[in-house]
Amino acid sequence: MVSSLRLPTLTSLFSPSFTRRSTVSLRRSFHLRPPLAAGFSAQSAASSPPEIENQVDSKKSSRVQDRGNTDRVITPLSQDFNAWYLDVIANAELADYGPVRGTMVIRPYGYAIWEAIQDYLNVKFKETGHSNMYFPQFIPYSFIEKEASHVEGFSPELALVTVGGGKELEEKLVVRPTSETIVNHMFTQWIHSYRDLPLMINQWANVTRWEMRTKPFVRTLEFLWQEGHTAHATPEEAEKEALQMIDVYTKFAYEQAAIPVIAGRKSKVETFAGANKTYTIEAMMGDRKALQAGTSHNLGQNFSRAFGTQFTDESGQRQHVWQTSWAVSTRFVGGIIMTHGDDTGLMLPPRIAPIQVVIVPIWKKVDERTGVLDAATSVAETLKTAGLKVKLDDTDQRTPGWKFNFWEMKGVPLRIEIGPRDVSSGSVVISRRDIPGKQGKVFGISMEPSVLEAYVKVRLDEIQSSLLQRAISFRDSNIVDVSSYEELKEAISLGKWARGPWSASDADELRVKEETGATIRCFPFEQPQGTKTCLMTGKHSLFSALPATSVPQETFRYDLREKCS
Amino acid sequence: MVSSLRLPTLTSLFSPSFTRRSTVSLRRSFHLRPPLAAGFSAQSAASSPPEIENQVDSKKSSRVQDRGNTDRVITPLSQDFNAWYLDVIANAELADYGPVRGTMVIRPYGYAIWEAIQDYLNVKFKETGHSNMYFPQFIPYSFIEKEASHVEGFSPELALVTVGGGKELEEKLVVRPTSETIVNHMFTQWIHSYRDLPLMINQWANVTRWEMRTKPFVRTLEFLWQEGHTAHATPEEAEKEALQMIDVYTKFAYEQAAIPVIAGRKSKVETFAGANKTYTIEAMMGDRKALQAGTSHNLGQNFSRAFGTQFTDESGQRQHVWQTSWAVSTRFVGGIIMTHGDDTGLMLPPRIAPIQVVIVPIWKKVDERTGVLDAATSVAETLKTAGLKVKLDDTDQRTPGWKFNFWEMKGVPLRIEIGPRDVSSGSVVISRRDIPGKQGKVFGISMEPSVLEAYVKVRLDEIQSSLLQRAISFRDSNIVDVSSYEELKEAISLGKWARGPWSASDADELRVKEETGATIRCFPFEQPQGTKTCLMTGKHSLFSALPATSVPQETFRYDLREKCS
Repeated sequence: MVSSLRLPTLTSLFSPSFTRRSTVSLRRSFHLRPPLAAGFSAQSAASSPPEIENQVDSKKSSRVQDRGNTDRVITPLSQDFNAWYLDVIANAELADYGPVRGTMVIRPYGYAIWEAIQDYLNVKFKETGHSNMYFPQFIPYSFIEKEASHVEGFSPELALVTVGGGKELEEKLVVRPTSETIVNHMFTQWIHSYRDLPLMINQWANVTRWEMRTKPFVRTLEFLWQEGHTAHATPEEAEKEALQMIDVYTKFAYEQAAIPVIAGRKSKVETFAGANKTYTIEAMMGDRKALQAGTSHNLGQNFSRAFGTQFTDESGQRQHVWQTSWAVSTRFVGGIIMTHGDDTGLMLPPRIAPIQVVIVPIWKKVDERTGVLDAATSVAETLKTAGLKVKLDDTDQRTPGWKFNFWEMKGVPLRIEIGPRDVSSGSVVISRRDIPGKQGKVFGISMEPSVLEAYVKVRLDEIQSSLLQRAISFRDSNIVDVSSYEELKEAISLGKWARGPWSASDADELRVKEETGATIRCFPFEQPQGTKTCLMTGKHSLFSALPATSVPQETFRYDLREKCS
Repeated sequence: MVSSLRLPTLTSLFSPSFTRRSTVSLRRSFHLRPPLAAGFSAQSAASSPPEIENQVDSKKSSRVQDRGNTDRVITPLSQDFNAWYLDVIANAELADYGPVRGTMVIRPYGYAIWEAIQDYLNVKFKETGHSNMYFPQFIPYSFIEKEASHVEGFSPELALVTVGGGKELEEKLVVRPTSETIVNHMFTQWIHSYRDLPLMINQWANVTRWEMRTKPFVRTLEFLWQEGHTAHATPEEAEKEALQMIDVYTKFAYEQAAIPVIAGRKSKVETFAGANKTYTIEAMMGDRKALQAGTSHNLGQNFSRAFGTQFTDESGQRQHVWQTSWAVSTRFVGGIIMTHGDDTGLMLPPRIAPIQVVIVPIWKKVDERTGVLDAATSVAETLKTAGLKVKLDDTDQRTPGWKFNFWEMKGVPLRIEIGPRDVSSGSVVISRRDIPGKQGKVFGISMEPSVLEAYVKVRLDEIQSSLLQRAISFRDSNIVDVSSYEELKEAISLGKWARGPWSASDADELRVKEETGATIRCFPFEQPQGTKTCLMTGKHSLFSALPATSVPQETFRYDLREKCS
């Protein structure tokens, strides 16, 4: 059932072998492509390699169209996690690739998940005293260039504007990879006295990092994020802020996305190059790889010293401000897909699902149609009025069975089925996405608005906590407590996360990375009880670390060593 | 009172004489600048030319700080509208300039106005069936390049990425000036049959146009906007959509921004180069210049033909789709400033004001402080609970008089004053921003929550309609009905808008532009009654046109002539 012809293209477009694919050839292949089944355009468009595409004639294409839902094939998760991931993204129409290598078009269904993330976080940011604003995306090259000797090591992650208004620019412009430099350039102008502090802002923006190995949502050339930036009068305040924001992210992950992230502090090796401390939330994906889902940095005075951001304190002394920055990006959407999805496709936690309930009307005879559709419309109105996100799929062009599969693949938490018998009895059938088959199906739920509304809301809450519980069990059964390097290696080789006392050197950490592929994801805030002996050195150790193999992450790193010295 | 030293800099940074100002010198000047009064950093930072800045010693700076509100000087609107505009932007902390020429940092107070615009429009877009999504900002140069012979005429408005990942790119990338091309590239892949139509999407994004003459909000190198893009099966549907969206913009302008725009159709000369028809809303600024505040284009099949965006209709025929695009940008914030502001500063319509009510507590003796602050806090809570946007200015560092001036300058619609006597009598004093002095001040409004809430809400509604009525009167008293070219010239020379029957040629239109500086802003939807004789030719004419001098607008123009032929 796995369409081997489809997968390679999306995979390869997001891999280094297609480093510079000609957009002209892309466009030609699209222009030549015959029409495919509606509703699966993303899959078709995203998946057929041009070489093969051009051989598809319109006859074959109509056959594809006629095949109906057999066309919608998702590689089993257990067989090939990466292929499964790309299939889900294409089939559920979450994203498509843009014409430029490594760029991504976020389609309405995927963007709606991002909007759910934005809506929640935006409120929390304001509640915690931050204001939104907007900084220009063009940053003078001089702001982030390293000393001449290091330029080559740095540039690879940047996109540079060198021509503007038809002329070569005197100074190249960097397309924002992150905004600490331009933020500090402005903070230096706005901050004068302790009365101007704390200064706490956030921006929702696009950022660009010239990644060579890309993957939709997880690592793309351009992505969307929020970046918070704050300046404080004391190091204590900055530390408190950095911790507060990783806490906001943690709550979001647990309560909204049903992702049981492990929050903690990064090792020195893994700390953001411009930060004194980096806090992170680490999520376990379905393939047991770790995804860094959000970070919060205590920047200390690194940027304020580099950019001269000073204030006059209450005693009249000039001091550099203490800063933080923190970010969550569209990569979180990838985290949601990879945490909850199964062989059937996407599975969305109700609180961030663009559609929480889909209603599928069922009729055979023409005279049944009106009654069923009226009841379905009325049920939809009831639930919409109750504040739920509802989709009534009343198209005549697909069978109920096709619709069941389609909306399951799209991860909609609840399905309501209404047939002629249900209309007679004034009840509906409700199926849960998280419990397959008959077990998840309940018959005879009354259509009476207050009863139905209450029932649906309770079920959605159940699904929300069930997804979280399932993810917690999965996570905990895949973390192994280790007390020696041998045990660590074994855990990692089994694809699991290791957890064990760590007070070893940076060199040891790099050696582990080289020998096992695992990196220390964090020193979790929640530490096991008891005395600890470092798993590498046998020495006393204060904290347990969490080494694991991770999903690729953004590679952008400041190097402020010269500026800060 | 006008600080002549301050104005030139912001003006010149946004003018061509500072085409390429060194960011290094900017940074140096900022680093050397001594601290100035908190709360006026934007003014100080944005306004002092570096040559003079460096001469300011810290002694002078403390004098500035001590001067208090005399430091906050806004050029009278009647004296120099442009200087007034820049002063308001700096003093009210709406925006600052970025380190790259022509770029703008949108500060929290300015961004909050943009958020109010977003919040309203986003709901309306969804109500009218559009979904949000996101397209990459990098567009292959081949997508928008003209034929080789025209390249030079086109490039000036573009920023080009030529280096990525440390290497020269094979194909230059255009930083999105608008997205029709990449949208159509994707639509071509997603649209196959009539069942896929209409396809109606919107994106909130940043766009870049390499403008040589820039002005904050009104025309900047990078700005924020929403761009809607739709595809339809018939020209009638596309036309209906284009009209629907200009109607959404018109309602927003009248009902939220209190700007009585004139909606209408652009002349052929002024129509967006990729469109068959362009609809526009034109607003009259305080200097009586016309501001194009939003446009909606019926694109016909221009882009679908250029990009091969076809669908199979119900009879099995392949057809090109019919499209629209429509946009409103951060320039609307400029329109709000220039419509309602006065010599005192900003004046914001309550429905889009980031702060609707400011509360200023007043006390002299220390033992009055607690009582006054408690009452002020309680009043603030009452109004916040009622859903109003409230600011309690309880700082000890400024006098009540200073605060009155400050919040008037920031355009807050209502001010509540609470002193010891008010506390005793359980009442407050309320002042309207739109009615200066004692006339706008009412004493003895009860603090009783239900009374106060009702009173404040009624006053805010009054201010909202009063601002609209005032703007309508101003607009109508500055439009002159003309029936000859002589009358047109006279109206324009008096700084007014002309309105008169028009069926003259494009050449005549260009001649008017050349000779008077005025362009036809639109053929208004609301036309005067009666038969019409063209003011230029004396021939019968169907429509009256609205020629006026306009605020500079974006110059980006597609040239699809070759692609469409």
